[in-house]
Amino acid sequence: MANTEKAKVAIIGSGIMATALTFPLAENGHEVHLVGTHLDRDIIDSIQKTGIHPNLGLKIPSSVKAYQLEQIEEAFDGADVAMSGVNSFGVDWVGEQLAKVVKPGMMVFSITKGMQADSEGNLAILPEVIKKYFPEDLVRSVTWSAVVGPSIAGEVAVHHDTCVVFCGEDQASLNRLANMFRTDYYHVWTSTDIVGMEVAAATKNIYAFAAGFNEGIRDKNREQNDRYVRFNYGSAVFAQGQVELTQFMQLLSDNQVLSPKHLLVGSGDMFVTSMGGRNVKAGRYVGAGIPFSEVRDVHMKGVTMEGVAAIKVIGGAMAPLTKRGIIKETDFPLLRHLYDIIVNDKPLNMPWEKFFDGEK
Amino acid sequence: MANTEKAKVAIIGSGIMATALTFPLAENGHEVHLVGTHLDRDIIDSIQKTGIHPNLGLKIPSSVKAYQLEQIEEAFDGADVAMSGVNSFGVDWVGEQLAKVVKPGMMVFSITKGMQADSEGNLAILPEVIKKYFPEDLVRSVTWSAVVGPSIAGEVAVHHDTCVVFCGEDQASLNRLANMFRTDYYHVWTSTDIVGMEVAAATKNIYAFAAGFNEGIRDKNREQNDRYVRFNYGSAVFAQGQVELTQFMQLLSDNQVLSPKHLLVGSGDMFVTSMGGRNVKAGRYVGAGIPFSEVRDVHMKGVTMEGVAAIKVIGGAMAPLTKRGIIKETDFPLLRHLYDIIVNDKPLNMPWEKFFDGEK
Repeated sequence: MANTEKAKVAIIGSGIMATALTFPLAENGHEVHLVGTHLDRDIIDSIQKTGIHPNLGLKIPSSVKAYQLEQIEEAFDGADVAMSGVNSFGVDWVGEQLAKVVKPGMMVFSITKGMQADSEGNLAILPEVIKKYFPEDLVRSVTWSAVVGPSIAGEVAVHHDTCVVFCGEDQASLNRLANMFRTDYYHVWTSTDIVGMEVAAATKNIYAFAAGFNEGIRDKNREQNDRYVRFNYGSAVFAQGQVELTQFMQLLSDNQVLSPKHLLVGSGDMFVTSMGGRNVKAGRYVGAGIPFSEVRDVHMKGVTMEGVAAIKVIGGAMAPLTKRGIIKETDFPLLRHLYDIIVNDKPLNMPWEKFFDGEK
Repeated sequence: MANTEKAKVAIIGSGIMATALTFPLAENGHEVHLVGTHLDRDIIDSIQKTGIHPNLGLKIPSSVKAYQLEQIEEAFDGADVAMSGVNSFGVDWVGEQLAKVVKPGMMVFSITKGMQADSEGNLAILPEVIKKYFPEDLVRSVTWSAVVGPSIAGEVAVHHDTCVVFCGEDQASLNRLANMFRTDYYHVWTSTDIVGMEVAAATKNIYAFAAGFNEGIRDKNREQNDRYVRFNYGSAVFAQGQVELTQFMQLLSDNQVLSPKHLLVGSGDMFVTSMGGRNVKAGRYVGAGIPFSEVRDVHMKGVTMEGVAAIKVIGGAMAPLTKRGIIKETDFPLLRHLYDIIVNDKPLNMPWEKFFDGEK
């Protein structure tokens, strides 16, 4: 299918990732309506007045129309694509909003990564959470898709090469969406393993927190000028992160092996997430010997950390899942330790001997 | 088995990796004889006079005894473990040397990573290359093992946590070797999939070269002070490296899935190798638009690059393997492009659309 369909795309949430995705869309000639949440008022104001997204630090395509939340119905009216552009903290809120404006026949498309758990440890991917707010017949009369993969928002906006996977239940929708977004810098693959892809995308944030430990240990030991750093430490943690990500995928998805596209979403995204950001920074403090409670309440007070939130949610599911015999005591040793650090304020003490299946 | 056996370990090759491994051995009370190659005369001189390994920049354990090449027979006499400590360029030479001094009952243990190819494209791991120099009955009267995994030499020497896999055909030898080496910072797993592990270890160097491209593109475009770097590019290349490493393992080993230990050796080691080094540096020049012939002859003249050598060898096997129908034209698009860059002096033009199995 050539890139000829001109579609109307409405987005709720005007954070940097959602806004970055308006670039390929607008450049491909689609009509894009960007609606701010109640937290995005200043962003929408800025775009309406100057065209500039203040957090992205860039002028967005002039054809993109920005709306305050009050205008959401107007913005979504007649849309082909209804996009959720909020982060994992806003998923319940966005479910409520979308339920009001999504109409049969629309393609629901989500950028939100993460999981929710119930008290039994049952984990749900976020598109499933959004569905809970929709009437049953509406759930079935739209299609559900999401974007995953290593994608720093600003890099997309400035046209740097980016490879992602659009995952969803309906291949025809995935093809239509992929064709709307594809440019010479935005490379899109598709997959119908939405659960496996979302699990890979959600869990990689967990391990970004652990990616900060080695630098923190160097801080603590005043090794910053030493010739030998701690790459061996970091690479072993990265690899164990890959092990646990794979086990999560096997636990929750019908897909049991890491396909090439899963490697892009799991391995590639964990790679880029390990390079820096808020979760890595928090992990660095912990590596330096600071209890997590102090990191949270003092050093990074008020900072949103999706990885830390994911450790609480997914790590919290470890105990009930173990009790129910779904996972073994020896599974997920790194995540269990991260949970202990974050929830029980335990000091970092890497359980190396339990890594890599523990069989020596 | 407790860590009680006191063994005699003789090593040929006194480079930084071989020498770093004398630290856990000596600390565990084993007798270690370190023999320099003809290229290592100054290193052995330095160790004999001052105890310092000049390239490692560290004093090595005082119990380690250093020998010049002429004393190799004395050094290997009565050894329990005969170690090959040379890099992939010295593998034929070390095969000849070891064939003269290895005796029945010894455990041959190799740190050398890489592969050789014949004109038909058949790839052999380096322990197999060493075997070719041994009489047949000697091949069968010793055991063959190797160390793989993310391990920067100096970090081992200064006692930074390091996780590795000892792979080989004989589990009893692997257990004995692992017990000789294990310390509170050197964490050893074992695997009898020697081919799969060696393939993972050998191919990761290939992709380290590609890990330099994104920085080179930034150099070329004068983006060094830009807010948005090219992590999306780097992570997609890393992920495609993982895809091709997995396909190599599936092609050459009986093992078809990435086990946790394979993830340590493949994913973990590619992670650390991507962080820097000579191969990454060469790739950065190419990313900046400099033909590889100029990188080789001018900017990095005389510099040993194992990754580049591996691209020539393994990349050179692509054509005959394709002709024989063993792999498809569409397999290994990244390696084929790297081969074109290095052997045919082609400019960098990343074949994104062929990545991740090419099925969009």
